[in-house]
Amino acid sequence: MIIDGLECGHFDRQSFLSLKTAGVAGVVVTCGFWEGALESLDSLGAWRDLIRENEDVATIATTPAEIEQAAADGKVAAILGYQNANLFEGRIRLVEMFAELGVRVVQLTYNNQNELAGSCYEVEDSGLARFGKEVVREMNAAGILIDCSHVGNRSTLDAIEASSKPIAVTHANADSLFPHKRNKTDDVLKALSETGGVIGCAAYRNITGDDYCASIEAWCTMVARTVEIAGIDTVAIGTDRSHNFTAPDYAWMRQGRWTRGIDYGAGSAARPGKAAPPEWFQTVEDMAVIPGGLAAVGFSQEEIDKITHKNWLRLYATTFRQAD
Amino acid sequence: MIIDGLECGHFDRQSFLSLKTAGVAGVVVTCGFWEGALESLDSLGAWRDLIRENEDVATIATTPAEIEQAAADGKVAAILGYQNANLFEGRIRLVEMFAELGVRVVQLTYNNQNELAGSCYEVEDSGLARFGKEVVREMNAAGILIDCSHVGNRSTLDAIEASSKPIAVTHANADSLFPHKRNKTDDVLKALSETGGVIGCAAYRNITGDDYCASIEAWCTMVARTVEIAGIDTVAIGTDRSHNFTAPDYAWMRQGRWTRGIDYGAGSAARPGKAAPPEWFQTVEDMAVIPGGLAAVGFSQEEIDKITHKNWLRLYATTFRQAD
Repeated sequence: MIIDGLECGHFDRQSFLSLKTAGVAGVVVTCGFWEGALESLDSLGAWRDLIRENEDVATIATTPAEIEQAAADGKVAAILGYQNANLFEGRIRLVEMFAELGVRVVQLTYNNQNELAGSCYEVEDSGLARFGKEVVREMNAAGILIDCSHVGNRSTLDAIEASSKPIAVTHANADSLFPHKRNKTDDVLKALSETGGVIGCAAYRNITGDDYCASIEAWCTMVARTVEIAGIDTVAIGTDRSHNFTAPDYAWMRQGRWTRGIDYGAGSAARPGKAAPPEWFQTVEDMAVIPGGLAAVGFSQEEIDKITHKNWLRLYATTFRQAD
Repeated sequence: MIIDGLECGHFDRQSFLSLKTAGVAGVVVTCGFWEGALESLDSLGAWRDLIRENEDVATIATTPAEIEQAAADGKVAAILGYQNANLFEGRIRLVEMFAELGVRVVQLTYNNQNELAGSCYEVEDSGLARFGKEVVREMNAAGILIDCSHVGNRSTLDAIEASSKPIAVTHANADSLFPHKRNKTDDVLKALSETGGVIGCAAYRNITGDDYCASIEAWCTMVARTVEIAGIDTVAIGTDRSHNFTAPDYAWMRQGRWTRGIDYGAGSAARPGKAAPPEWFQTVEDMAVIPGGLAAVGFSQEEIDKITHKNWLRLYATTFRQAD
């Protein structure tokens, strides 16, 4: 059983069938990058439609028990998440409403600074701002997991300190293993570890590097090195896999509506556009090789279970609003 | 002739009559604090209605020539401004559209950090962020004056550097004269001075202090000391006067929708709610005493003209989009 801490893109029936084949029982899906409140409601509506149309193979899960039930039923559980806090549109009272509507994971900010926090791509990371402190408290109370994957390291440390619940870095790697603005410094990984947080190791080439993408052994070696830094209870999987992503989707993800220019996101002028998936991860079904790959680099079955799903389930149990 | 760099509140016919009596020919009005794009269009609509209903005494001005024409016609010119960049709602392409609709002054952020910049009330001022740099360039091109009154000192310095046009601090005082988070440090005042920017001296008690509010002489002495710091071409008037402001307006201005708690804005727990106006400025008509007050502390007529209106007119000529 695998839980993937973050995927994105346009899911369709084939996405769920492929995930099921790969042994993925739960996946945090990206319902929005830049969308405001109303657009985010639209996105929730579209997700409800998609799940209803595919209810034989997919379901929405809002609790760890619902993910486990989905697995028992042979379905893929979609956990509703946003990669930006823009869905709240500056309104503290919308946090609990989106939680009631099923949202369980929200990243404090995406590629730009916002009212809450600094981004990993800003020259200066402000740390958690006034509204950010309010939202962290409200997300704790409402039962939404705080995600700091694209958040700056300083703001991430502030969020760990401000939050009464452990937080997640759903999709990033260790900066000490592959230096990149999107990856997390060791002090962040250690602070996550000390507070019960979890990092999902990514398999997105731009933030994983060619070496760790070259084979399943290489990628699992990266996971093992991350465990050496953060401990076995802190490390999980967050592939950052996209489904049916096209050039306009990259333009939206990176440029949104905030610039007339080009932004390369995790890529660069030398590597614009879509990064090729790792050699071992050409199709979504290839995720099936992960448990065996982890065993091959020396993890025990108990450790593999923690990395593939138990660490996420423990964090979700601690942070998710329980179904009413 | 007086131009007031910033006023706020619910203007009505009496507001315009009082301003006219006081000799105020132009005033930057606050069309929004926290409002998003659609709400800001609503506000523009309401302002158009108000001006049409009072077209015998008021008009909307979008150029310095229109302000001077209003003065010649015995009318008060409203210059449309926003105290937050939230009207753009993260969309770079809305900047020129709001300029076309008559908006001429926009503050990069209000009391909280946003996608553009840090606020004076944040623990840490990030400096100008990625979207802030884009918006500064776009405002320069579209002809909207950049206002940094509530913006943090560091972000203000960044904006001065990033902007190809001079910028404004429409309503604040010198921090070295009355220390307050809302006031500007001498390095900011000097950077304004070196780049052709202008600061409007405020008469809002919370950021002016009781001593400088005690009499027109005292307030004009503060203006004279500001001129000593920033030079005669940099100092103007931005009273921050509010019209028909009630408790719910203060709640909106300070708490908006971003907190469930209480925020005191420029006030404090010891001084919540509405600050009493200066002794010399009990009614809007009292602004008529300003030119005489400036003369009494030693300014020449030429200097008085710069402070009361010519510095603003020069800055507007440099920065405002000209009517198409």
